[in-house]
Amino acid sequence: MELIARLLAGDRRAVARLITLIENDGPEAQAALAALYPHTGQAHVVGVTGAPGTGKSTLVNELTQELRRQGRSVGIIAVDPTSPFTGGAILGDRIRMQELTADPGVFIRSMATRGSLGGLARATGDAIKVLDAFGKDVILVETVGVGQDEVEIAKAAQTTVVVETPGLGDDVQTLKAGVLEIADVLVVNKADLDGADRLVFALETMLAINSHPRDWQPPVVKTVAVRGRGIADLWAAIERHRAYLSTGHGRQAHEQARAQEEIEAILRHELTARLLARLAPGELSALAERVACRELDPYTAARQLMERHGVTEDADER
Amino acid sequence: MELIARLLAGDRRAVARLITLIENDGPEAQAALAALYPHTGQAHVVGVTGAPGTGKSTLVNELTQELRRQGRSVGIIAVDPTSPFTGGAILGDRIRMQELTADPGVFIRSMATRGSLGGLARATGDAIKVLDAFGKDVILVETVGVGQDEVEIAKAAQTTVVVETPGLGDDVQTLKAGVLEIADVLVVNKADLDGADRLVFALETMLAINSHPRDWQPPVVKTVAVRGRGIADLWAAIERHRAYLSTGHGRQAHEQARAQEEIEAILRHELTARLLARLAPGELSALAERVACRELDPYTAARQLMERHGVTEDADER
Repeated sequence: MELIARLLAGDRRAVARLITLIENDGPEAQAALAALYPHTGQAHVVGVTGAPGTGKSTLVNELTQELRRQGRSVGIIAVDPTSPFTGGAILGDRIRMQELTADPGVFIRSMATRGSLGGLARATGDAIKVLDAFGKDVILVETVGVGQDEVEIAKAAQTTVVVETPGLGDDVQTLKAGVLEIADVLVVNKADLDGADRLVFALETMLAINSHPRDWQPPVVKTVAVRGRGIADLWAAIERHRAYLSTGHGRQAHEQARAQEEIEAILRHELTARLLARLAPGELSALAERVACRELDPYTAARQLMERHGVTEDADER
Repeated sequence: MELIARLLAGDRRAVARLITLIENDGPEAQAALAALYPHTGQAHVVGVTGAPGTGKSTLVNELTQELRRQGRSVGIIAVDPTSPFTGGAILGDRIRMQELTADPGVFIRSMATRGSLGGLARATGDAIKVLDAFGKDVILVETVGVGQDEVEIAKAAQTTVVVETPGLGDDVQTLKAGVLEIADVLVVNKADLDGADRLVFALETMLAINSHPRDWQPPVVKTVAVRGRGIADLWAAIERHRAYLSTGHGRQAHEQARAQEEIEAILRHELTARLLARLAPGELSALAERVACRELDPYTAARQLMERHGVTEDADER
């Protein structure tokens, strides 16, 4: 496949083209990913997750500059809070990153999602593989907020950095509950604001209470990203986590669990696409109309479609 | 089905039991939902979405008290930022709602998610149906932050209220991008804080620029939920949106599109579950191991599983 050859030879346009193919989810994308796959597994994939307002874009920007000073190449994947209703994607913070776009050692891509639930997580996972095969040493994946998508995306990262900031109000507790378990490293950004030490203390306390039986205790790092403060400390914490992963059997088990989830996600998508491709024109919308009128419930409608098109409950029935 | 008869007779424990069945996704849950379905479609389902710190739990609490004063019964479904790694669910704000739990006209449930992506959206949609059949006049669904799950859940609501708050930092723009399109009503909560009028102005400007060709212009309502201010205005805005929906053909088209998406989500889940049930013990994990070692890519692994278990590309091949 020519696109793959060009990508492996270092052609940036081939990378961009391939990620677009992935977003559009064509059959070529699957063939390309199969061809790329043996070239993956070298990059250190770091997820950077935090609510809007925590300054994580600035943090990603500063981390990238730190990595470039160390001579490492960097891929950045920004996952947008996209509108599925317009198909559009807006990301104001990207402007701040413009100085990076001129650097050939950095590849930046923002992901837009279209279509079904899970599509974004799958496309992001595949884009990571592309940048990995392209030879980037470190891939930073920036995601917004909490939610199941974030958790799915976090699973594709080897190290997940969760960014918090002082003064997001009294619901902070709620935020923490969902993300503490996915954090390998915690950052208190805007650490020059009031309440930073209180937040560090609160996080450390919650970690101590919540900690699962595991041998990695997530450190809490203070940064002031807009001034570049604490960035080297943050990178050192990420490196320590990578070193931790490479010792022991944690990494192999983690990779295998991730591979299994990935296969299941592909099955969910493919099996449905194959069944839908068999339907007669208007067959699905006619059923949906009956469901909307409460003549039929959606589970029965789905079962009817499966039965009509030869999907049986059990292999023995065939 | 005895559980359904009890639920329709007003037994609260039957409601709780049924939602638990739904969360555990057993075959009984599907049968029960099919039986319930003809009794649904009466409630006004209102989604309340906002980032942590916007005070949306307080808002839901105050809205509920307003509705109770009007003599309406209320269902509340709180969707937690749950940890899928622990299976647990924490929600600090729930404490504030304790006074409501003693009111027989209010039913509160928080949803925990387990398992695959999309599971939360499906379970929440089904829990809404249960409270609808149970006869609640208004169902308030509280979700955290932005993300594709939120968007999926928003589709189950007839009216989506998006809560913003002044002073969440300069990334507010990013937040708005994802949620403006799903908002039917916008709330600026904590409107007594500095910057509230600026935020109202910014939101109104963005709405004017972004507005799609549609005949409903989302209003921006100011509230101070902790003091109960603006709650009656908010409810009036939600009622206006409901009245808008009941005129014209918008509602039928919306319901049909939603039904179609629901059927597709059930297919994704069911088709995968049926295929996985056919596998030999260890068959999936052996493939996952080969994928983790980069011997095989995940797309090829998924295709092998489909071919081995009789899922063909096209009906004609059978």
